[in-house]
Amino acid sequence: MAANELTKAATGNAGRRVLIVAFPEVQILDITGPSSVFNMASWVLGPKGPGYQVEIAATRRGPVKTKGGLLIHATTSLSRVQEPVDTLLVPGGEVTMKVGSVPDLPPQLRRLARHARRVASVCTGSFLLARAGLLEGKRATTHWVAGGELQRQHPTCEVSADQIFIRDGNVWTSAGVTSGIDMALALVEEDLGRNVARQVARMLVVYLQRPGGQSQFSVQMASQWASSSPIREVQEWLPEHLQEDLSVEALAKRAAMSPRNFARAFHAQVGATPARYIERLRVEAARRLLETTQRNIKEIACEVGFGALETLHRAFKRALGLTPAEYRRRFALGE
Amino acid sequence: MAANELTKAATGNAGRRVLIVAFPEVQILDITGPSSVFNMASWVLGPKGPGYQVEIAATRRGPVKTKGGLLIHATTSLSRVQEPVDTLLVPGGEVTMKVGSVPDLPPQLRRLARHARRVASVCTGSFLLARAGLLEGKRATTHWVAGGELQRQHPTCEVSADQIFIRDGNVWTSAGVTSGIDMALALVEEDLGRNVARQVARMLVVYLQRPGGQSQFSVQMASQWASSSPIREVQEWLPEHLQEDLSVEALAKRAAMSPRNFARAFHAQVGATPARYIERLRVEAARRLLETTQRNIKEIACEVGFGALETLHRAFKRALGLTPAEYRRRFALGE
Repeated sequence: MAANELTKAATGNAGRRVLIVAFPEVQILDITGPSSVFNMASWVLGPKGPGYQVEIAATRRGPVKTKGGLLIHATTSLSRVQEPVDTLLVPGGEVTMKVGSVPDLPPQLRRLARHARRVASVCTGSFLLARAGLLEGKRATTHWVAGGELQRQHPTCEVSADQIFIRDGNVWTSAGVTSGIDMALALVEEDLGRNVARQVARMLVVYLQRPGGQSQFSVQMASQWASSSPIREVQEWLPEHLQEDLSVEALAKRAAMSPRNFARAFHAQVGATPARYIERLRVEAARRLLETTQRNIKEIACEVGFGALETLHRAFKRALGLTPAEYRRRFALGE
Repeated sequence: MAANELTKAATGNAGRRVLIVAFPEVQILDITGPSSVFNMASWVLGPKGPGYQVEIAATRRGPVKTKGGLLIHATTSLSRVQEPVDTLLVPGGEVTMKVGSVPDLPPQLRRLARHARRVASVCTGSFLLARAGLLEGKRATTHWVAGGELQRQHPTCEVSADQIFIRDGNVWTSAGVTSGIDMALALVEEDLGRNVARQVARMLVVYLQRPGGQSQFSVQMASQWASSSPIREVQEWLPEHLQEDLSVEALAKRAAMSPRNFARAFHAQVGATPARYIERLRVEAARRLLETTQRNIKEIACEVGFGALETLHRAFKRALGLTPAEYRRRFALGE
């Protein structure tokens, strides 16, 4: 069937057909966040509008135990889904990161994706899409704790864990858990326009577009540890000495290497230049101070070794998509 | 039992017991948003930590059809819950606004609340709490579309629909749908501290504390219409004439009343002073222009009759908890 006919077959009178996959230990919010967006869009459009019909499919019909213990009911078994679906949506859960977990899903996803207008994943659902071969050569995102692992398991996929969601062709992937709501709003916007998407966002009391990317929520830096000991010792020494001279020359001296060798070895083993790595450490330290102290931003810039306020500002914007003041408003301890 | 003993009985080895109520046409995200927060807190604490045990209770055990069609499984029937619960949580859904809907719930809620450490509602779940007599003389919030109706049905409850959640003693109420996630984070913070709550927020990729209140998401102003025709005509005339002289004197003249009588009648019938009402109209008009045009904020201030940029700024902050620029970043049409 041509794409047009597929869409028509999957839309029909009952509305666009959204098939959400369920499996044991799935994160239930990855399912119910997007499904509530689609259902609210149908509600906003009214009974005559071109709404959505959301179905849950699992290996077998019936209750599926989700992570934390709640049971959600699958109304259909995956293998029985024959007609084309409009949107095939795959939620996540820790379990999906393990190679070989839920082994019956990837073949079914591959089969259904062939006839779907678009395919989407929430959180670590991206691992299942990748295992079905649907992320090969594509740009994709996933939960911020899982970006490195997805990249390792699927080297042809270009993983970027900083965005809330990414679209590459007809494949959409979203970041951790609640990001599935943001992505579903974007899917509704694609289908029905900004105005409907905005009404849905307001009814659900969510932002139509969040400021900044997913990194602002991550606790650790996704950094590698060097394999050889002199570089690793420098890595361990750095966080407590952010105000000192951290030029390549000074660091190379600590490692008893030439500056050129040091820079080359550092990049190869850590996966970033020394300058970029130090900038990330400083941003991380500044975040902690913004969250837990009342100190003013200029003092903090100085304390973490940025020197000028502008340097902190620029590094923050680059790393988190937010200014330090915006960051503090969202995450600070005090009221 | 004393409060301490209750808490101990409801906490036990399996963790704090959270009982979430389900009923036909419930908004599923009101259930799964908070439950995911409690479950993630247990995960963050690890198997030995004082986590939560979340249960779903309905009139009968088994699948419950939620709004939009998804089925969630109730693991217990409400009438069989005998032991004290730690947190009794009541989700919403349009259906709860209708007097007499789900009539078997309020008596059960009243009974269970007597032995619960705290009681909470999400969205229009507040109507069920109110019907159980649990909001009498309390401050409470609900979905922004439902604030007026809750106030009308339950005059002794002090409804404020601008906050994301409100705590009054051991009764917590939250605003529309996803606000249940924000409230659950606050409950976790109360139990386990800011640090655990922050880790949960980051794992779920949500803000620990959202900037601004619920009003920023509302489409219409929750305003009343005057009952007598001269005042009502002024109300109808106002939105198209925001740049004109809107002093009480000028408006009284339009209504063929004395300024004093006009001001008094306006307040009595509309529920706000003319000045406050006009300010809200101007904010509403400015919001539309910020969302749908590229015009700069100063021009917009002028166009909606605020005159000075600072007046717009102040009115915006007061009404929405955000500056006009922040508002535009979140809701603007263009990229």
